[in-house]
Amino acid sequence: MSIRCAVVGATGIAGQQFLAALRDHPYIEIVRLAASERSAGKRYGDAITASSGQLCWYPNTPLPEELRQMAVVDAQSMSLEGLDLLFSAVESDAARALEARYAERLPVVSTASAYRYEEDVPILIPAVNGDHAKLLDVQRKKRGWKGYVVPIPNCTTTGLAIALAPLHRRFGIEKVIMTSLQAVSGAGRGPGVIGLDIIDNVIPYIPKEEEKVEKETKKLLGSFDGQGISAAGMSVSCTCTRVPVLDGHFESVFAALSKSASLAEIEGAMRSFGEELNAETHPSAPAQWITVERDPFRPQPRLDRDTDRGMTTTVGRLREERVLGENGVKFVLVSHNTRMGAARGAILVAEYLTRKGYVS
Amino acid sequence: MSIRCAVVGATGIAGQQFLAALRDHPYIEIVRLAASERSAGKRYGDAITASSGQLCWYPNTPLPEELRQMAVVDAQSMSLEGLDLLFSAVESDAARALEARYAERLPVVSTASAYRYEEDVPILIPAVNGDHAKLLDVQRKKRGWKGYVVPIPNCTTTGLAIALAPLHRRFGIEKVIMTSLQAVSGAGRGPGVIGLDIIDNVIPYIPKEEEKVEKETKKLLGSFDGQGISAAGMSVSCTCTRVPVLDGHFESVFAALSKSASLAEIEGAMRSFGEELNAETHPSAPAQWITVERDPFRPQPRLDRDTDRGMTTTVGRLREERVLGENGVKFVLVSHNTRMGAARGAILVAEYLTRKGYVS
Amino acid sequence: MSIRCAVVGATGIAGQQFLAALRDHPYIEIVRLAASERSAGKRYGDAITASSGQLCWYPNTPLPEELRQMAVVDAQSMSLEGLDLLFSAVESDAARALEARYAERLPVVSTASAYRYEEDVPILIPAVNGDHAKLLDVQRKKRGWKGYVVPIPNCTTTGLAIALAPLHRRFGIEKVIMTSLQAVSGAGRGPGVIGLDIIDNVIPYIPKEEEKVEKETKKLLGSFDGQGISAAGMSVSCTCTRVPVLDGHFESVFAALSKSASLAEIEGAMRSFGEELNAETHPSAPAQWITVERDPFRPQPRLDRDTDRGMTTTVGRLREERVLGENGVKFVLVSHNTRMGAARGAILVAEYLTRKGYVS
Amino acid sequence: MSIRCAVVGATGIAGQQFLAALRDHPYIEIVRLAASERSAGKRYGDAITASSGQLCWYPNTPLPEELRQMAVVDAQSMSLEGLDLLFSAVESDAARALEARYAERLPVVSTASAYRYEEDVPILIPAVNGDHAKLLDVQRKKRGWKGYVVPIPNCTTTGLAIALAPLHRRFGIEKVIMTSLQAVSGAGRGPGVIGLDIIDNVIPYIPKEEEKVEKETKKLLGSFDGQGISAAGMSVSCTCTRVPVLDGHFESVFAALSKSASLAEIEGAMRSFGEELNAETHPSAPAQWITVERDPFRPQPRLDRDTDRGMTTTVGRLREERVLGENGVKFVLVSHNTRMGAARGAILVAEYLTRKGYVS
Repeated sequence: MSIRCAVVGATGIAGQQFLAALRDHPYIEIVRLAASERSAGKRYGDAITASSGQLCWYPNTPLPEELRQMAVVDAQSMSLEGLDLLFSAVESDAARALEARYAERLPVVSTASAYRYEEDVPILIPAVNGDHAKLLDVQRKKRGWKGYVVPIPNCTTTGLAIALAPLHRRFGIEKVIMTSLQAVSGAGRGPGVIGLDIIDNVIPYIPKEEEKVEKETKKLLGSFDGQGISAAGMSVSCTCTRVPVLDGHFESVFAALSKSASLAEIEGAMRSFGEELNAETHPSAPAQWITVERDPFRPQPRLDRDTDRGMTTTVGRLREERVLGENGVKFVLVSHNTRMGAARGAILVAEYLTRKGYVS
Repeated sequence: MSIRCAVVGATGIAGQQFLAALRDHPYIEIVRLAASERSAGKRYGDAITASSGQLCWYPNTPLPEELRQMAVVDAQSMSLEGLDLLFSAVESDAARALEARYAERLPVVSTASAYRYEEDVPILIPAVNGDHAKLLDVQRKKRGWKGYVVPIPNCTTTGLAIALAPLHRRFGIEKVIMTSLQAVSGAGRGPGVIGLDIIDNVIPYIPKEEEKVEKETKKLLGSFDGQGISAAGMSVSCTCTRVPVLDGHFESVFAALSKSASLAEIEGAMRSFGEELNAETHPSAPAQWITVERDPFRPQPRLDRDTDRGMTTTVGRLREERVLGENGVKFVLVSHNTRMGAARGAILVAEYLTRKGYVS
Repeated sequence: MSIRCAVVGATGIAGQQFLAALRDHPYIEIVRLAASERSAGKRYGDAITASSGQLCWYPNTPLPEELRQMAVVDAQSMSLEGLDLLFSAVESDAARALEARYAERLPVVSTASAYRYEEDVPILIPAVNGDHAKLLDVQRKKRGWKGYVVPIPNCTTTGLAIALAPLHRRFGIEKVIMTSLQAVSGAGRGPGVIGLDIIDNVIPYIPKEEEKVEKETKKLLGSFDGQGISAAGMSVSCTCTRVPVLDGHFESVFAALSKSASLAEIEGAMRSFGEELNAETHPSAPAQWITVERDPFRPQPRLDRDTDRGMTTTVGRLREERVLGENGVKFVLVSHNTRMGAARGAILVAEYLTRKGYVS
Repeated sequence: MSIRCAVVGATGIAGQQFLAALRDHPYIEIVRLAASERSAGKRYGDAITASSGQLCWYPNTPLPEELRQMAVVDAQSMSLEGLDLLFSAVESDAARALEARYAERLPVVSTASAYRYEEDVPILIPAVNGDHAKLLDVQRKKRGWKGYVVPIPNCTTTGLAIALAPLHRRFGIEKVIMTSLQAVSGAGRGPGVIGLDIIDNVIPYIPKEEEKVEKETKKLLGSFDGQGISAAGMSVSCTCTRVPVLDGHFESVFAALSKSASLAEIEGAMRSFGEELNAETHPSAPAQWITVERDPFRPQPRLDRDTDRGMTTTVGRLREERVLGENGVKFVLVSHNTRMGAARGAILVAEYLTRKGYVS
């Protein structure tokens, strides 16, 4: 089996993460790189070289030579011939029109938020809501597309939804209060977070982030009835901040469950979560979706973000709490925002959809 | 008027903050510096010089020459002659016995936690619970002391209690959920937080911190009936973390009020809080105890911690929220942990007690 | 006496530093704020507010209300009526044409590099080469301008030239080798240094910086013969790097002197340097141009950059060395890149030129 | 073949690096862990667990379970039975007596400085001065030891000596001027570098470091005549600083060569350096001892320190310079201080000595 894909928005930091993550993929192969008009026609290596001579390649593995030499095509006018799938890492403004053009003919797995809140569009994390994939049939039919658009969630939602999913499934969740301490890589490089703002500092606001997390969490944990998704009935309130950390979002979570659960039961539910969706069948899936640390000084972003290629969510400081509700629990988590929360998370979605027959 | 004081634990980072803060004080004068046996007999400048030759002086104003030359005495055996007051900045283990010895004869204002949770000991922030000072009469009587011990709260409690006090007074508070992002200076220098642990990282645990904040907040906001303090009836749950910030604790707060209040009313209550306790009568008091920022990107620790010599608490991102309760509100705050949260906060307590006749 | 000035490029980070530094100036008054067409017509407060609502004001003192309300005019078409002087903080590309237009009529003190290397243009640091100011007469005559352009040096040159000047004057300098560890604020905000690049890192290259420092140092330390400047005969070689520091350039300097000098003589020359140019006659001048630290752990950027409002250069670790030459010396220094190295340094030039009769 | 070793000082950060680095070693096996009396008798996992419950394990790979369970023995009294080799990572004070005791019977490869400057003790980096190993025969004879002590250099010397060795061999080196920007991990954890000192800062002094680098570099590049080492005739002058970087020392080097060499020749000499000492024969050797970057923005500590398991030295910004001498060259380098500069570097020495018949 071989899936031939294009990476759109390949020159940006999110696009680069796709290139790095697909480097040794057993069956997904990059055959085309697309970007804006400005980069089109250049070799990829030249397209990401600044006028100062700096090679702007951000992943921590070297840029493969064959990609360096590959020509970049214009995302607006690129041919879809010979492709099975597109990964879109374009900015949300551009994503709306571009992704629709691609989806008329082919599956599009996207890190952009453009379609996340449409009724016929699922946001997917396979272990959390793999059954929502069937909404793609509705989408195709309704829009008359041969392909479809399937976005992954915002990187801050990802860790939260993964940690909450086993609790919601087993015990039900009524309420969630979350404060995030987010890494600078989540802001990308365009506007980015400049050193002058973030060194020795905390920035208390990330525009639109809190609304995204609140809305996406409820959609991800919602139920699919064959026609649409009913958002989960829980209420969610967040404050999202930026801290001087390179990679790995840290979240402080307080949750009220629908029914009583011991810490051991909660820990057990987390540890066994997603075990059916592992690396044997999905090359990008983590061996453990959630690890639970008992050392109270863990998880820490720098020490835990890279667990299992950045695909594991690490939970720690699991404690009872009675302020939010009778069956309250509080914990912290670390989730890698540019791995599970971005390119690798999207690749895992592609793997899942391939197995389910949605990519051919 | 002149109050002659000793600073005990003068060589540590907390003690040094007292020396810096008292530098230009209009009426409190340092006449004695005390520390452990190891430093006793040395000049202060020598006592804080490491074997490598490094002068370990941490405040950002120079060490005054007269203090550099002052002899350090042994805290265990120091004479109390000629003193009106002691500021204690010793570690909590040593504080228990030392402070009792001093309090037999003199007032002791302390940053240590040793006595904070005793029934006959108030924890004081003048604008928050100045009326609790009268508990000192009970303390003196009960213990047979001429002086007394009055601790200030933990530095993380300070900002929270100040921000909550006007809300509790006007609207009542039922529930509080708080996540702190604390600065490294709070950990002092002894064990301290080493660079290798905190650069590019978040540490999710500060031993005993959460219990302190939960307990102290309720005591501070409690009511005094002439004999003792009844803790406020609210419930409080915290997660305390450390971030790569030098000074200034940042806190993300969710609170449920007892009765409905508009954001304008809440903001108004905060802005007018403490206005009777200002710099005219209390040299260390801030012009505004709380400022409320409307720019959603504020407060930031680096930009806001130093407002009014680090004595102002800056609140921002004030928003309604409905998860914690019907009359919920969420906001963030920045409070300077080594200014209002430590030495300067203690000096302000001394000023308050002086005006109330508790120091002579 | 009152000097009425305009700040051109007022919305940028360098321009803002002028606004902050002139806030309490005894005789220089800001009467006009100019920026690019995009900002023209707006109130200053609105011009520096981002679409996200963030007030992009970077100095650590609040934006004065009267400036917040002042209208911004277009730098291209602004009237020069009623002005005595212009401070230019525009980017070097735009500076060439703009500054020429202004200089036809008025004095222009500039932080831009556009004119620094012209034969008839002095680069000024008053205590270093105040006598070069007379080159402005040549410039006016040659160009037929009523005013003139006088740039200050690159911020990395500033600290180096100040530290070398007393040595060059007293002992002569043959050779200089310097490695800089520069703060992120030097890069401004436009492209800036993003957090993702600089946290936990060193960037070994700052385009064009080394050439500027080598060239400017020799020009600053050169001699003026009434017609032109002969660059100093010394040779200079640099490597300039960026480190995770907010403000304050740190430089490691090795210098070979022309004749033998003891460390005590060198220290003495540094300590007495510039004493004739002090705050009595020049409000922005430091009490000491150079302080020499004997604590081997000093200077440190964070602890020493703000000495005397960021106008003092702090030298430390003064040692003999014999590799670069027979009369070698090595030391390190800290100089505030956005104070003495930018706006305040330019204001000091204006004060100097005012006293010398070059501003009226 | 199997070499059975003990790691002495196993609980410290340097000792832990040995445990991590030997984890998958093809033929060196850890059979004993030794530490101070305080840890003796405990299981290793318990010995490194703080009273707060924190597991103080610093490498970025997990602690192997079999080591966690291994009993720690007292370094003073440990049996040497069954051992072929000891790795010593103890503090230099303790090293003097302990290493002598071990060396009476067995080879000791040490990261401590205690014996580095003895006449009969080589400091080894195999590709730089492998021939100095024969000095061990002299040492054994002179001291009457069956074993020997062989220290590796200071971590700051390591990168410098590796970069200079090919130049010295091919062109001769007359003079070296170096400024280091060192990572915090080099300071270990005991005293360590605390966050409060290093965030947003540079520390200009590391006690004894400069003397070590100057002395060791000349000894490493010196020649062995069968009886002793003659230090290289070059002169070396350094300034060593600490920057807010976790791992990876950065050095800015200026060198004057004995004869003319083009940049291409210099680069060629560096690239081919050490190619005979590769991973085929020495499992810990890098594929390339030195890589030379042409991108002027490289090397950067964070991006380049981990190249080939931290065993490659990355050189960049190679330029001619004429201040230090006629045949001058300047460049920067990054070397991993806790990999090639510590445990892995010592293991490589053990591998080299094993092949040369010095370990049996």
